Amino acid sequence: MRLALLAGGTGGAKLAAGFAGLLSPGELTVIANTADDDEFWGLLVSPDVDAILYRLAGMFNERSGFGVTDDTFHALSMLHRLGEPTWFALGDMDIGLHLLRSRLVHSGMRLTEAVADIAHRLAIDAAVLPMSDEPVRTRVLTDDGDLAMQRWFVEQKCAPPVRSLRYEGIEAAQPAPEVVQAVHDADAVVIGPSNPVLSIDPILTLLAPHLDRRRVIVVSPIVGGRSLKGPTVEMLRDLGEEPTTAGVAKHYASVAGTFVIDPVDTALQGAITALGMQPIVCDTVMADAEDERRLATDIARIVEGWVADGAS
Amino acid sequence: MRLALLAGGTGGAKLAAGFAGLLSPGELTVIANTADDDEFWGLLVSPDVDAILYRLAGMFNERSGFGVTDDTFHALSMLHRLGEPTWFALGDMDIGLHLLRSRLVHSGMRLTEAVADIAHRLAIDAAVLPMSDEPVRTRVLTDDGDLAMQRWFVEQKCAPPVRSLRYEGIEAAQPAPEVVQAVHDADAVVIGPSNPVLSIDPILTLLAPHLDRRRVIVVSPIVGGRSLKGPTVEMLRDLGEEPTTAGVAKHYASVAGTFVIDPVDTALQGAITALGMQPIVCDTVMADAEDERRLATDIARIVEGWVADGAS
Repeated sequence: MRLALLAGGTGGAKLAAGFAGLLSPGELTVIANTADDDEFWGLLVSPDVDAILYRLAGMFNERSGFGVTDDTFHALSMLHRLGEPTWFALGDMDIGLHLLRSRLVHSGMRLTEAVADIAHRLAIDAAVLPMSDEPVRTRVLTDDGDLAMQRWFVEQKCAPPVRSLRYEGIEAAQPAPEVVQAVHDADAVVIGPSNPVLSIDPILTLLAPHLDRRRVIVVSPIVGGRSLKGPTVEMLRDLGEEPTTAGVAKHYASVAGTFVIDPVDTALQGAITALGMQPIVCDTVMADAEDERRLATDIARIVEGWVADGAS
Repeated sequence: MRLALLAGGTGGAKLAAGFAGLLSPGELTVIANTADDDEFWGLLVSPDVDAILYRLAGMFNERSGFGVTDDTFHALSMLHRLGEPTWFALGDMDIGLHLLRSRLVHSGMRLTEAVADIAHRLAIDAAVLPMSDEPVRTRVLTDDGDLAMQRWFVEQKCAPPVRSLRYEGIEAAQPAPEVVQAVHDADAVVIGPSNPVLSIDPILTLLAPHLDRRRVIVVSPIVGGRSLKGPTVEMLRDLGEEPTTAGVAKHYASVAGTFVIDPVDTALQGAITALGMQPIVCDTVMADAEDERRLATDIARIVEGWVADGAS
């Protein structure tokens, strides 16, 4: 079975780890949001790509929610001493990876090739693809001004209320050819439980023309009215969308035919059906690797059913 | 009194620290060799400039002989895990400085301006000037091939015998205007006890037309037939020069009128005089900060004499 998983940095990356433990090499492609990317001291920082790489390599720092386990911050302390702003915490090991990636890209590789090279060096079996080789940068228009995503998210701690989002560069950007191929080859496209507007919409903006709604399955990032991680609920509310599981289903209704909800949201099945989507109830909370694998297994079973139907 | 000190990374940097403790801000300019520079993962690494900066900022790692005290190597360990060659040990704090400098240069600053900015951020009073804004790179022709200086020095541990040196790019390079100005404004140009062929000759190649031999004073890097640090003796011998204090005096006889030797080499005074140079005997071994200051004081006293003569 071939799956293409659209993912941001937390829920999507966890689900990626679940699939990676389940599928054979060549069966899983993770397509990562790059609209959260930014540059610090000339280093391209790609938080969602790296959360996926580090998680698949077993190095992800669960405690901090970014970067590498047991990393230190000595380069950053020097930059602080030199008077630089250091609100974006780049760890030393993390910087090692960024130095290599920057060098690969400056030496002429496309970002897609550089990430593939690094995934290979980390002995990751799954294909990890940035959504595009061209820069796309989310700008967050807030009451405090038009901020780069990381400035709003990290420096401002998501505090300024969000008026609108803009994915700068998205009109000129193309999905990388590997991304288009992976989506076309996939038996299903899974949209991970990531922030719909921050993490998934940039990917969907690029990929929507290549998607077959009947083969797209979404895992809700909102469970029982709360987001498991990050500012999804607050952000949807600020943007005037319905900040609930049903609201997320509505958000995705035009691109996805199947919507996975947690047992606590069982009562929403009718509402989801009314949107023209097939509701599926699974345990979606991923507290540990066993949860990740269980959710991946449940979704894989659904897709197996589609494959069997298609073959019959 | 205004001094311009030509320096490599060890003896010259120590003498710079001695002068910095003695002279007022504005009186000391340290002109650093950049022919040992190299690039690693897109970072310009400038070992002699940095040895001077770190020493003047009180951060130099005496134990290792490079980089910052108590630095760690976690970025490097990640690069190693990613399969990169890591024979050049860049510490994490060191990388912090390199990231800033690279960003300053990429944002349009000349190297001279970037180094001045960093020296200012480190609260260094002395002017620290790279010898040129243009790249010059020492190539070491050995029995094992034509090697970049750092590859020969660090990776190969100076083992392959040296047949010749070449300062790649030196024909096209100019001394930075600040360097020329500092030399013209100086009451004396002091050549620190650094490796004559590796550290000083590249600077002299650029600066010789601007030097007044009567105002140039050299501190011998060889004491009692031995180099205090590094492969000076072996290298001079391999290159067919006389690997002794007298040999070094001969090396500099065309550019310098005064030659400082250690008391153990007192017997060489006649030979130095025969070269047309004024021999001066001082304790030149700098084991600690007190030694550095004492040698700086002795040299400053000589220059004071010149200034008084010139004024009389």
